[in-house]
Amino acid sequence: MRILVVNPVGAKIWDEKDEKYLRRFARIDTSIKVLSLKDGPSSLETFQSMVSVCPGIIQLVKSVDNNYDAIVINCFGDPCIEAIREVVNVPVLGPGETSMMIASLLGHKFSVISPTRKTAVQVELHARALGIEHRLASVVELDIAVLDLERDVEKTVKAVVKASEKAVQDGAEVIVLGCTGLAYMADEIRKRLNVPLIEPASLALKMAESFVDLRLKHSKVALYGS
Amino acid sequence: MRILVVNPVGAKIWDEKDEKYLRRFARIDTSIKVLSLKDGPSSLETFQSMVSVCPGIIQLVKSVDNNYDAIVINCFGDPCIEAIREVVNVPVLGPGETSMMIASLLGHKFSVISPTRKTAVQVELHARALGIEHRLASVVELDIAVLDLERDVEKTVKAVVKASEKAVQDGAEVIVLGCTGLAYMADEIRKRLNVPLIEPASLALKMAESFVDLRLKHSKVALYGS
Amino acid sequence: MRILVVNPVGAKIWDEKDEKYLRRFARIDTSIKVLSLKDGPSSLETFQSMVSVCPGIIQLVKSVDNNYDAIVINCFGDPCIEAIREVVNVPVLGPGETSMMIASLLGHKFSVISPTRKTAVQVELHARALGIEHRLASVVELDIAVLDLERDVEKTVKAVVKASEKAVQDGAEVIVLGCTGLAYMADEIRKRLNVPLIEPASLALKMAESFVDLRLKHSKVALYGS
Amino acid sequence: MRILVVNPVGAKIWDEKDEKYLRRFARIDTSIKVLSLKDGPSSLETFQSMVSVCPGIIQLVKSVDNNYDAIVINCFGDPCIEAIREVVNVPVLGPGETSMMIASLLGHKFSVISPTRKTAVQVELHARALGIEHRLASVVELDIAVLDLERDVEKTVKAVVKASEKAVQDGAEVIVLGCTGLAYMADEIRKRLNVPLIEPASLALKMAESFVDLRLKHSKVALYGS
Amino acid sequence: MRILVVNPVGAKIWDEKDEKYLRRFARIDTSIKVLSLKDGPSSLETFQSMVSVCPGIIQLVKSVDNNYDAIVINCFGDPCIEAIREVVNVPVLGPGETSMMIASLLGHKFSVISPTRKTAVQVELHARALGIEHRLASVVELDIAVLDLERDVEKTVKAVVKASEKAVQDGAEVIVLGCTGLAYMADEIRKRLNVPLIEPASLALKMAESFVDLRLKHSKVALYGS
Amino acid sequence: MRILVVNPVGAKIWDEKDEKYLRRFARIDTSIKVLSLKDGPSSLETFQSMVSVCPGIIQLVKSVDNNYDAIVINCFGDPCIEAIREVVNVPVLGPGETSMMIASLLGHKFSVISPTRKTAVQVELHARALGIEHRLASVVELDIAVLDLERDVEKTVKAVVKASEKAVQDGAEVIVLGCTGLAYMADEIRKRLNVPLIEPASLALKMAESFVDLRLKHSKVALYGS
Repeated sequence: MRILVVNPVGAKIWDEKDEKYLRRFARIDTSIKVLSLKDGPSSLETFQSMVSVCPGIIQLVKSVDNNYDAIVINCFGDPCIEAIREVVNVPVLGPGETSMMIASLLGHKFSVISPTRKTAVQVELHARALGIEHRLASVVELDIAVLDLERDVEKTVKAVVKASEKAVQDGAEVIVLGCTGLAYMADEIRKRLNVPLIEPASLALKMAESFVDLRLKHSKVALYGS
Repeated sequence: MRILVVNPVGAKIWDEKDEKYLRRFARIDTSIKVLSLKDGPSSLETFQSMVSVCPGIIQLVKSVDNNYDAIVINCFGDPCIEAIREVVNVPVLGPGETSMMIASLLGHKFSVISPTRKTAVQVELHARALGIEHRLASVVELDIAVLDLERDVEKTVKAVVKASEKAVQDGAEVIVLGCTGLAYMADEIRKRLNVPLIEPASLALKMAESFVDLRLKHSKVALYGS
Repeated sequence: MRILVVNPVGAKIWDEKDEKYLRRFARIDTSIKVLSLKDGPSSLETFQSMVSVCPGIIQLVKSVDNNYDAIVINCFGDPCIEAIREVVNVPVLGPGETSMMIASLLGHKFSVISPTRKTAVQVELHARALGIEHRLASVVELDIAVLDLERDVEKTVKAVVKASEKAVQDGAEVIVLGCTGLAYMADEIRKRLNVPLIEPASLALKMAESFVDLRLKHSKVALYGS
Repeated sequence: MRILVVNPVGAKIWDEKDEKYLRRFARIDTSIKVLSLKDGPSSLETFQSMVSVCPGIIQLVKSVDNNYDAIVINCFGDPCIEAIREVVNVPVLGPGETSMMIASLLGHKFSVISPTRKTAVQVELHARALGIEHRLASVVELDIAVLDLERDVEKTVKAVVKASEKAVQDGAEVIVLGCTGLAYMADEIRKRLNVPLIEPASLALKMAESFVDLRLKHSKVALYGS
Repeated sequence: MRILVVNPVGAKIWDEKDEKYLRRFARIDTSIKVLSLKDGPSSLETFQSMVSVCPGIIQLVKSVDNNYDAIVINCFGDPCIEAIREVVNVPVLGPGETSMMIASLLGHKFSVISPTRKTAVQVELHARALGIEHRLASVVELDIAVLDLERDVEKTVKAVVKASEKAVQDGAEVIVLGCTGLAYMADEIRKRLNVPLIEPASLALKMAESFVDLRLKHSKVALYGS
Repeated sequence: MRILVVNPVGAKIWDEKDEKYLRRFARIDTSIKVLSLKDGPSSLETFQSMVSVCPGIIQLVKSVDNNYDAIVINCFGDPCIEAIREVVNVPVLGPGETSMMIASLLGHKFSVISPTRKTAVQVELHARALGIEHRLASVVELDIAVLDLERDVEKTVKAVVKASEKAVQDGAEVIVLGCTGLAYMADEIRKRLNVPLIEPASLALKMAESFVDLRLKHSKVALYGS
């Protein structure tokens, strides 16, 4: 099984690290390829940044479509995932929507930990568009810009733990990391929490494997039809 | 007052006609400029087509921002309207969201008449993201592709009237034309209906004028912040 | 264009002031007439007070219906607006419902600043009846009775600003003044806020003008049918 | 126990009959008094008609308040029930809201059978304002004006049975008679249905008795505060 | 009228006391019989405990079905009430669902006071399954296990009053006691609150009486069909 | 990895067949054990039947808990899944809730094909309790009792295909088989549909594997706490 992971940013620096990280969760017979874009910003926090990378993502997936059994878009914002589903014929997984649906299977309500107030609002809107807003306890912001998350890992881990504790007060029984840039810190954060923690990139990978095994693909009858 | 109307397609053929049409509804002291994109498809029915035009829209509005008091994106799908609001400092009106909100002021429920099943589903999703889905009676599809709407006007008018009658059976008390390409037919359709008909492009124009008069602009505190 | 503004209270003292205030926002060719009722309480904070003024409002609009192109009911509670729409054939605008729908076009969520806990609950119910409750971040009460709002303007302005700041904490990106008695203070409040402020009376006036220009009237097919 | 039943119309012709009908369901120690208004229309199908009777209802209940332990407003539309609750200190029951809440205890979903399309829409709005819309399968209209319901009883009964069968197809497991004018036909209709039938006037009476026994009254903390 | 009250626990110690308590609210001609189970836990706070008592409840009601006109399951959790409704032909009342529906008739929103965080979450889920969640202001937990509620009555009463005050801050206008084990304290709690207090066991009893009088039973068309 | 599949019925006849079927989707290193109950009905269509099997399920999972890494309850109704989650410390997957959440990732809306009107209503309630009802286009009933589904496979397949076509008319883009007894027919049904078909048992198995790989377990903080 061959899975393409798209880092929808114009920076290659995380590709190798991500591949290694995701490798930990993949089945032995799954090959993972992480590709980023030629151009574009290093993080996607604004709608403008998503607009700027989407043509590149479409071009990329179109060009390699036949070589992969499934595609994971490695960003919690699930940028232009509907358009990607229109142009390819394999399952396309978004970490954001996948983790919000699966979190709903693990406890009464979940909260998402999000970098900033702006990204937090985007998550709220996303949950509502998905129709899963009744399971969302809250979105708790870290007040740390995406590219600053890696600057001081211990500080970020502490901020996520604190935000998660607030989330539990808001009614959350499950925590979702609202940025795939936090993936490397998931193990450390998990140790410090007494509720389940979903790391969306690894979850999307496993769902991709499952969809391939089950031969499930997106419906082309209307929403993702071309 | 200077209002920019963006035809978010790579075809100039409707620009002059649209300007003339909208002129009918504008105040005497409002100047209207309709601009289309250099490149892009002639209609926006897929997510892929929206992805392809959005960078051009952003570039356009950024380059002329200072010259206008408000911007109308002349497509019912309100393509990348969040990103546009991030990059400009004047009100940005989308015919889709504007007409769904205003329709809710004119009767118990409204229906949208949409070209195809695919565009109909997009409208349903849009209404839900807006949180106005409880006022939406139905989305009725014409089963006519956007670029075919103008091919045989009388046929299209009849199809819209028939779809509207179905919508009234679905509970609609107000009809919204779900494609700005139908604007020219609104007068004729209105004559044949006994419920109010909203033509979204002209409505968005009037809202733009009102926002300018009231000095209302989009909030930049989070969703449209940069 | 002739617009009738009904002050649905038994007190003329605000009529002239309101006319002057609204004149600021009207188009040059719009004539505005503000009329209040012969009898009735000076403010509408209870359901009982609304019951007491509604027959007078109906009688008034019926008697002058033909002389106006649109009617604005100048109270955030939109008293008996359904009945008014039944009996006249011109657009009838309510500041409450108009401002909640339009606020939804300016940011992710809005909050309403309301005089008392009782009026705050009425706004919550109103938002739900309108189906726009998912966009309502909160209703923040001032704990000042309507007729006391004008007693000490600076105190009231400060209270609204403080309440608005709480609203932003609740998730609001747009503030709606929940009483048309606050209209005169809108400019001063706006200066002290960094989010858009909707003053409902002026907004309703502009919407009335737009509806007349677009020849939009309420549907008479069922809800407002007679 | 003394219960006041208000027939909120300007016609006494049903008072005696209603008293006799409700007597069948009352406890032995319950005294029932049915009073109608001095003036007003004979039926309440429009918002305008409700506006016209509400001052009279308020005046009536205020004048007799002390003599009764509970009040039932004998109309499915629950006219101005909030205002009534403000001015009296005993429980006030509305057949419409009571029957929709109780129907939800008897099966998965309920439908309301309503005289006309206009009244049907009012019921839909009412259910939404109550927050019980998720249990409402449908509102099925009879297309018979209220005052014509009694004209040909067998015809009306047949129309209600037919409408109820449609309602069961819509998912209803319980039927609610959406007009207290249908009360006398409930026995006959019930015989012809295989799902429970709620007759709202008798139900409201029994709830009134229960509230008195339990000493439950409406909260005066905000919504019904004065 | 003969009403069976099932104490769905494997402990007889409350039977006599409950019968005496409910006797206070019953009509003179109502006979009440309280029966508990042969086996089972003394309280139902976990899903596991409900699973363990449900077969016993079913067996009990089946064996005595013909001797009673209505059945009340004396636990706020309404354990296996759907199954009970399948197997008997008389009305079956659950204090939880009955009190949440009736609370909605007494004020804008209600809150439930629940023993623990776990039971609080169960109430939230229950309200959502019932479709009444929009009327639920909050569920406030006491942090006292069910069997400890009676240990120190004054302490429990104080905790309920404090929780109710928080609930009023959350927007509640009506308080519902979220455990039938609190029934004996209702009078004392009511004295200390200025909002209505619903004690669910007595309410369910009165509703049972009303259903019998009105000959209302659960629909057997689908949800409770066998 | 060792996965326990519980057939929650008192009949062993499907155990071997189910193991073989699920084996097709399992990873090479996954061992699957299918166990049924000693006693109980052969199908679960009523709430009463679920009540009767739940103690046996709890006893079974408790006795073997330590030997397995995850548990799948092989019935679309997800009987007493909350109780099971309380008593074990491994992930517990329900085909019903898992498939409804995952279906939402594959298209705009999904429909569930359910044996009877009664089971269809149970699915509707389940979707609402999960908070995923906005993605549910409809539940279409086959009008075939569960134990009759296998009687004439070609007839059942045709009925499912016909029901699925109706579902697509209702707006479904994805079909979910609403009974694990239909698993063996999924391949044949899939051939005849042009929308994705989810077979819930195999999906739950794959999710179980993924949860084990990701070390995700249910939250014990409240809902599933003990």
